[in-house]
Amino acid sequence: MKQAFNLSLEELQQRDTRYIETLFALSNGHLGVRRPALFSQLAGESNPGTFVNGFYETGPITYGEWAYGYAENHQTMIKLPNSHQLTLEIVGETSQQSDWLINQTVYELQMDQGLLAEAYDVTTQSGKQFTVEVTSFVSLVEPDVSVLNLTITPLNFSGDIRISSDFEHKVTASENNAIDPRVAKAKSQLAQVELADNWLKLTANSGQRIFMSQVLSSGAREPEVGTKNIALTVSAKAEQAVSLQHFTLISAPEEQQISRLAAIRAELDYQRLYEGQLTHYQAFWQASDIVISGNSVLQKGIRFNLFHLYQNAGRDGLTNFAAKGLTGEGYEGHYFWDTEMYMLPFFTYTQPQIAKSLLAYRCSILPQAKARAKKMAQKGALFAWRTINGEEASAYYPAGTAQLHINADIAYGFQLYEKVTGDSQFIQEKGAEVIFATARFWLSYGDWSTSSEPCFQINGVTGPDEYTALVNNNYYTNKMAQNNLYYAVELGLRYGIAEEEVANWQAAADHMKLPYDKEKELIKQDDTFFEKAPWPFAETPKENYPLLLHYHPMVIYKHQVSKQADGLLAEMLFPQDYTKEQIIRDYQFYEKVTTHDSSLSRSVFSILASRTGQTEKGYHYFMDTALMDLTDLQGNSQDGIHAANMGGSWLSLIYGFAGLSFGKQQIDFANHLPKEISELAFSLRLQGTLVKVELKAGGIQLGLLEPNERLQVVQQTADQASIIIKPSDE
Amino acid sequence: MKQAFNLSLEELQQRDTRYIETLFALSNGHLGVRRPALFSQLAGESNPGTFVNGFYETGPITYGEWAYGYAENHQTMIKLPNSHQLTLEIVGETSQQSDWLINQTVYELQMDQGLLAEAYDVTTQSGKQFTVEVTSFVSLVEPDVSVLNLTITPLNFSGDIRISSDFEHKVTASENNAIDPRVAKAKSQLAQVELADNWLKLTANSGQRIFMSQVLSSGAREPEVGTKNIALTVSAKAEQAVSLQHFTLISAPEEQQISRLAAIRAELDYQRLYEGQLTHYQAFWQASDIVISGNSVLQKGIRFNLFHLYQNAGRDGLTNFAAKGLTGEGYEGHYFWDTEMYMLPFFTYTQPQIAKSLLAYRCSILPQAKARAKKMAQKGALFAWRTINGEEASAYYPAGTAQLHINADIAYGFQLYEKVTGDSQFIQEKGAEVIFATARFWLSYGDWSTSSEPCFQINGVTGPDEYTALVNNNYYTNKMAQNNLYYAVELGLRYGIAEEEVANWQAAADHMKLPYDKEKELIKQDDTFFEKAPWPFAETPKENYPLLLHYHPMVIYKHQVSKQADGLLAEMLFPQDYTKEQIIRDYQFYEKVTTHDSSLSRSVFSILASRTGQTEKGYHYFMDTALMDLTDLQGNSQDGIHAANMGGSWLSLIYGFAGLSFGKQQIDFANHLPKEISELAFSLRLQGTLVKVELKAGGIQLGLLEPNERLQVVQQTADQASIIIKPSDE
Repeated sequence: MKQAFNLSLEELQQRDTRYIETLFALSNGHLGVRRPALFSQLAGESNPGTFVNGFYETGPITYGEWAYGYAENHQTMIKLPNSHQLTLEIVGETSQQSDWLINQTVYELQMDQGLLAEAYDVTTQSGKQFTVEVTSFVSLVEPDVSVLNLTITPLNFSGDIRISSDFEHKVTASENNAIDPRVAKAKSQLAQVELADNWLKLTANSGQRIFMSQVLSSGAREPEVGTKNIALTVSAKAEQAVSLQHFTLISAPEEQQISRLAAIRAELDYQRLYEGQLTHYQAFWQASDIVISGNSVLQKGIRFNLFHLYQNAGRDGLTNFAAKGLTGEGYEGHYFWDTEMYMLPFFTYTQPQIAKSLLAYRCSILPQAKARAKKMAQKGALFAWRTINGEEASAYYPAGTAQLHINADIAYGFQLYEKVTGDSQFIQEKGAEVIFATARFWLSYGDWSTSSEPCFQINGVTGPDEYTALVNNNYYTNKMAQNNLYYAVELGLRYGIAEEEVANWQAAADHMKLPYDKEKELIKQDDTFFEKAPWPFAETPKENYPLLLHYHPMVIYKHQVSKQADGLLAEMLFPQDYTKEQIIRDYQFYEKVTTHDSSLSRSVFSILASRTGQTEKGYHYFMDTALMDLTDLQGNSQDGIHAANMGGSWLSLIYGFAGLSFGKQQIDFANHLPKEISELAFSLRLQGTLVKVELKAGGIQLGLLEPNERLQVVQQTADQASIIIKPSDE
Repeated sequence: MKQAFNLSLEELQQRDTRYIETLFALSNGHLGVRRPALFSQLAGESNPGTFVNGFYETGPITYGEWAYGYAENHQTMIKLPNSHQLTLEIVGETSQQSDWLINQTVYELQMDQGLLAEAYDVTTQSGKQFTVEVTSFVSLVEPDVSVLNLTITPLNFSGDIRISSDFEHKVTASENNAIDPRVAKAKSQLAQVELADNWLKLTANSGQRIFMSQVLSSGAREPEVGTKNIALTVSAKAEQAVSLQHFTLISAPEEQQISRLAAIRAELDYQRLYEGQLTHYQAFWQASDIVISGNSVLQKGIRFNLFHLYQNAGRDGLTNFAAKGLTGEGYEGHYFWDTEMYMLPFFTYTQPQIAKSLLAYRCSILPQAKARAKKMAQKGALFAWRTINGEEASAYYPAGTAQLHINADIAYGFQLYEKVTGDSQFIQEKGAEVIFATARFWLSYGDWSTSSEPCFQINGVTGPDEYTALVNNNYYTNKMAQNNLYYAVELGLRYGIAEEEVANWQAAADHMKLPYDKEKELIKQDDTFFEKAPWPFAETPKENYPLLLHYHPMVIYKHQVSKQADGLLAEMLFPQDYTKEQIIRDYQFYEKVTTHDSSLSRSVFSILASRTGQTEKGYHYFMDTALMDLTDLQGNSQDGIHAANMGGSWLSLIYGFAGLSFGKQQIDFANHLPKEISELAFSLRLQGTLVKVELKAGGIQLGLLEPNERLQVVQQTADQASIIIKPSDE
């Protein structure tokens, strides 16, 4: 069993250092550390670093040609130096670490416990032999602390061993890559570095400051603490293990009280943090694990995805989930719609506390979203397409600000959270204002058509498909805006918004334009999608994908071609609103024009295939991306994990194979298990209660693991079951 | 009469130095000099400079977010220092020029002769009095030479006077203005400045080099030539005038033969250049003048426009007409579609040799246009939206590269040139290849609609109206592409292009989609223009115009609002294709949604108003812009003249008031003279022959000034007359 939770180097095909650094990166949602093995044996350049969620540098975006309302400043997550870098010296030995003969015997990500384990056999030039075992983790008990435990056992000598840390106070970032818009653009940098009161104060030009401190302890000697580094000498005896611990404390940017950190530093206890880590991970897997029978590689791959989802989510209500988590610099550490639409469902259904924190972040940036709407000459709030601090940081608005659907995506995230958890208090206290502000934006940006039939239209937008930009009435956007408005109506009635405004929301939602081709009987991605020429797929060589790196945007936009699921995503999210026949027709059409150049696409195709009886197809789309980072499918995992894709793999399993669909007061499940998976079992937390779901060929079973009178399990058929949620008495 | 050709400072309301520098700038299409008066008395900062048409610096464009196929490098016309800057010293006088009491008695642009005249009364601190008269011009006889003649007359002393020139070898440019996208963006700079063989060699980082030399002569003494400047001392006697001349020689960038320049330098003769200048301008006005009776300010304003059009046009077949001519740094010295659509008709009809040179420039950059089409994954050629060297320099493709209509605009320019001049040889030798290459682009970028009716559509483009971007089937673009294709068919048949290709051009042109709303009976600016919400004009405060400086592009694009004439421009260009009723309907609709935020708009509205009997409106639109630079209507004339608007004023008069319309083999005129203009007289050169056109209330008269058997004047009615062009015998 443990084996299925451990990921060791031997299991991986790719051995590039930077790729392994991404996979083995450790995080707790606040701190992230990516680094090579302590004594790295791998080829390729290393790109280590320590990331603090929400700690960023900023500066003006340079445009070839400026226009009013453009995003003004970039925001780039700062890459601090590797805080898990220790150097060993054998006192009296003239040869240095770099001269030694080193054999790494263990290199393993222990996902069940949230640890990274390393072990080495070392021989110095003078023949001294010793073993080193390393256990490192980023603490879930103390979010400000990351930990490294070193156990050294001399085999043929006794003597002093000196361990030092050289956390360099300067900061570097990877070179700007002008060719691929998907990687980090700006160079991260610190405005100021000071050492005071044994704390390093790192100030970013964003005005943010973090405090940092390192501790080395072995219980034996006191460490030497220098201004720039820290070192400790331990006495080791032959064949006796000696251990020491290295702690790094890094505050959150908004944490200005050094006293709190100092208290934590004074109480640092390895065993407490270690055991706490295990406890947290045990609880995590109990609530969130997915057991898959029939394919051990897939089983591990899914756990790898769940592990990274769990460890990389911001948990403080002031930070979110970056597109690459805290595992790399890709996308500059920005938060996108990925959070709500691809990652949040996993948390909402299995770790609602984290879901709430992620949503609380959106509440925290509502003032910025309101300011942005104003800048766009609109009412309400418009959330930034990509951001850290809440301000728009997208430097290309046709595939940035124009993706207004992020407003409705966020609203959907709150709505699903309330439906699944029943936590209406959070909605009342914080969420409702987001829903009202986004609804107001739709009423302002959209307009009533002047044509004969009254319809509410939203022109000049870009949908999820970034291969089609600045169109009128993107299907997904309008469907999601409609849902946003209906939720606003519900909350408006509940919380006493003026009748007239609620009526306006209701009218716009009721008459929302949802483009449909009556002749073809297909939903239209937007008003003019069907009028465009098909992309010349036959004449496009394989190496010209992704298209965005080989064709001018204009050329892509004028064709009928989609980067990813767009209208189909709406059908995936609102299955009750579409007949199976409609979904199949749309699926068959849009599958032909979709390149899946976005990692967010295949999971949607997998789910819809599963739900419409195309089980084989559902499985293949799922398998194409379930192991995306483990197999380096896109060749860019070195820049960080594809977090949304990881969330997508959860969706494929739960929404697809297990057919989850959340109606008004009922959650339906249907068994769409492909033949390659003999059993699938997982848990969900519904209305606070853990529900077990088990599928195997010919059967689906639901069971409440805790009593809850409001939940009623109904077995509809062998392959269909539901949970009915009775209205709360309150 | 002379008075009506002279523009003196007293006539102008605005006195800002930089504004006057623009108005009084001198040019010959190769060299341009803008400078303050020699002893300037005006307030405000000066921004003098010398421009060489086509001499530019370049460097990578920085994008907030890069995408494939984006324009790679900016091109910025280099502003060399003021080459007409002389300093006077009275030998033995301790006070300096800056200490003297100076009274400017003459400051006048003598447009009839292409001269700038200045005169001063000067009193030094020690009481010496003298007068200075200055005549300067940029030579039309020797395009590499600009000239300054100084006549000094001591009134109460005799002595030596030293004149020196301090042309600084460093180069400056105005500060980048990040707010307004319409002004220069990059800082111009020189990569290298060397002095060798008495020639200054100025090398730009574009790889271009120009040679430069200054000469001071008075016939009396030899000048002192230093490495950095040149000086001359002349002996002056009381009440006797002494003259000296300053010449600046600057080669064209492609001119590498210093021997030719040296020969010109050796033969410099002020009198020859001065008299040549007068002869050239006499010929110019004879062919191109427009006489307007009833409004002397308008008369002068029109001459001012014609003067700047004439003097700023590139004449060497390798350069074109920058948006600001050579009078300022606005738009970085780039060439746009303005040339073909707003300025070229004036040259084609009155100075065909210059028209030919401007078109020859397009032939010279055809290789770059072919490369650009390839980069855009298309066949044929795509001309750059804005450029100096032929490569695309637009850093915002939705209002740049997407304006594909430039291809058809250029084709239209060649077509009109051939129709008016009959110069088919130029078309055969050079023009036809441009027409074929642009036709091939349309066949490649456009496509046959898959809907029931066969129609050729051009999706994903931006028309002239930059307040609407990336739309399908922009009316103007499609109409112009259709014309381009028909011309290609004509030339293809004439010059033996393969039948199949010609047939494809014909088919695409015959079935070109020209969006039309049958219910409203209006041409549609594009497929979806009528589906957009009207711009909220009532709620838009005056200071929010131009909209582009106060609203995000997305917000502008999603509304039914036009920056300038778009579909109406097509109706203006092809009057035969539209009924008067259709034009009036379209006019009434589009006038309501047009802001005229572009200086290219009002002339089109003026012409269509004149032609449809809205004479008053035609006059007012005309008057709004006829004096645009003289009245600093847009407040930015300091950055350079609005050359296209000047061309537009010619169009308003000739196409509008005189109703010129060129059919297949016939040119029709109609008297649409507004009551404010009692008489209008001008000449056109048709098929090589000068034709006189005279209009007054109730009558129009045509007359051939030279015999031409192929031209037949037909007086249709008192207010309508035509010239029928009989087919050539060849």
